[in-house]
Amino acid sequence: MTNAALTPAEARAKFRAGLRVPTSGFCAGWAQANLISLPRDHAYDFLLFAQRNPQACPVLDVTEPGETSASIFSGDLRTDLPAYRVYRDGELVDECADVTGVWRDDLVSFLVGCSFTFETALLDAGVPVRHIEAGTNVPMYRTNRECRPAGRLSGSLVVSMRPVPAELVPLAVRVTARYPAVHGAPVHVGSPGLLGLEDLDHPDFGDAVEIRPGELPVFWACGVTPQAAVMRSRPPFAIGHAPGHMAITDARDHDYLS
Amino acid sequence: MTNAALTPAEARAKFRAGLRVPTSGFCAGWAQANLISLPRDHAYDFLLFAQRNPQACPVLDVTEPGETSASIFSGDLRTDLPAYRVYRDGELVDECADVTGVWRDDLVSFLVGCSFTFETALLDAGVPVRHIEAGTNVPMYRTNRECRPAGRLSGSLVVSMRPVPAELVPLAVRVTARYPAVHGAPVHVGSPGLLGLEDLDHPDFGDAVEIRPGELPVFWACGVTPQAAVMRSRPPFAIGHAPGHMAITDARDHDYLS
Repeated sequence: MTNAALTPAEARAKFRAGLRVPTSGFCAGWAQANLISLPRDHAYDFLLFAQRNPQACPVLDVTEPGETSASIFSGDLRTDLPAYRVYRDGELVDECADVTGVWRDDLVSFLVGCSFTFETALLDAGVPVRHIEAGTNVPMYRTNRECRPAGRLSGSLVVSMRPVPAELVPLAVRVTARYPAVHGAPVHVGSPGLLGLEDLDHPDFGDAVEIRPGELPVFWACGVTPQAAVMRSRPPFAIGHAPGHMAITDARDHDYLS
Repeated sequence: MTNAALTPAEARAKFRAGLRVPTSGFCAGWAQANLISLPRDHAYDFLLFAQRNPQACPVLDVTEPGETSASIFSGDLRTDLPAYRVYRDGELVDECADVTGVWRDDLVSFLVGCSFTFETALLDAGVPVRHIEAGTNVPMYRTNRECRPAGRLSGSLVVSMRPVPAELVPLAVRVTARYPAVHGAPVHVGSPGLLGLEDLDHPDFGDAVEIRPGELPVFWACGVTPQAAVMRSRPPFAIGHAPGHMAITDARDHDYLS
């Protein structure tokens, strides 16, 4: 069975059993989500940060403190993503496949929309998605654009990049604009220097992809933005997904169609 | 000068000077907002309630504790709405034109999208708006639909109602669906009994309007929903706008066009 044909429960079982790969291309038609888990004391700051930066942080679901599943994610948030990142005082201290051992009862988990969700729609519309063709992770970059801060949280916008043939850029914008809850339309087309990005070959997260002649780099807001804010703002503890290694939810792509 | 031609600053000056009227039809092209101010200790519960009930509670702006203006509202939140409601332990204890005397430094103010914002677009599209024709307040009703609770906050959905000629219902849906941040498309068309509403002539808030032959009652989610949750959930203190007597913001209607 191809990755695209898996159900969310099947994919989560594979990840729980140890499969550790980026989730782009998995479970066609099902929404994927970024994870950020923070102590309850920091939950208001994050929810406000998300309200102030909705394109980067579209919140799909919020758990009660300590809960290990969510209304749109019936799996176990501690084991059913392919990989996690653990932060203490803003420092990345571990990347691992299971966070059961460091889980805390005061953690509020936020599931934030992920642009992998609209990739099926891009493919259906005839827009190629290079990192799926290449079987690699999407490239992600920290930009020079500041998010609006909230309480103790501040950070810069992180974007994902997909090269799009110039003539298909309007179609790519139109298709993705229909999914505002999973980052929606691009934030930028074609001039990485204006985002402070000098070298697309060395992404901050994920893998570089080829940009072919006649293609423009197109940038979408990315749900790794909360982790960039954690690294800058240094809450005492946080867990995120490993970039590109998402929570595959029980919600359908079309649940987020505007 | 007509009410529609006023700028937000001009309208706010009139309200500050004592004008106490519903704001429907004021300041064409400018967004209006519901106000709910709660102690900082209850701010997370409300922001989570809004995240879980986005059609009723689309949050446009959130202040820091004690702040009396907001990024989209350069006036004074304590004086520049036409009228306020003050709640203690969930009981309505005052309706007044100025809340300076009861203001608290720990109040976080939430500006929540208001359906008055899309009424200009409805009129432009040729959809009549009865309460503007009649010069009265929009009728609002508490329904039997429960909102998803959050922390200590729970309550039922409040809706506003506009009678729409049957042949214009699809147009009214399409026009308003383009404004998701100000309640968007209707939640219900034509069968008030299914919302638990037996008597449209006696709204819970605002004024009744005539429903003429050939018209259907069309119901939109309403930003009075937070005040219904306050009445049910009894936080120690809260301030809201008097229903229909909104904050007129410095944001344009089209800022909220999807």
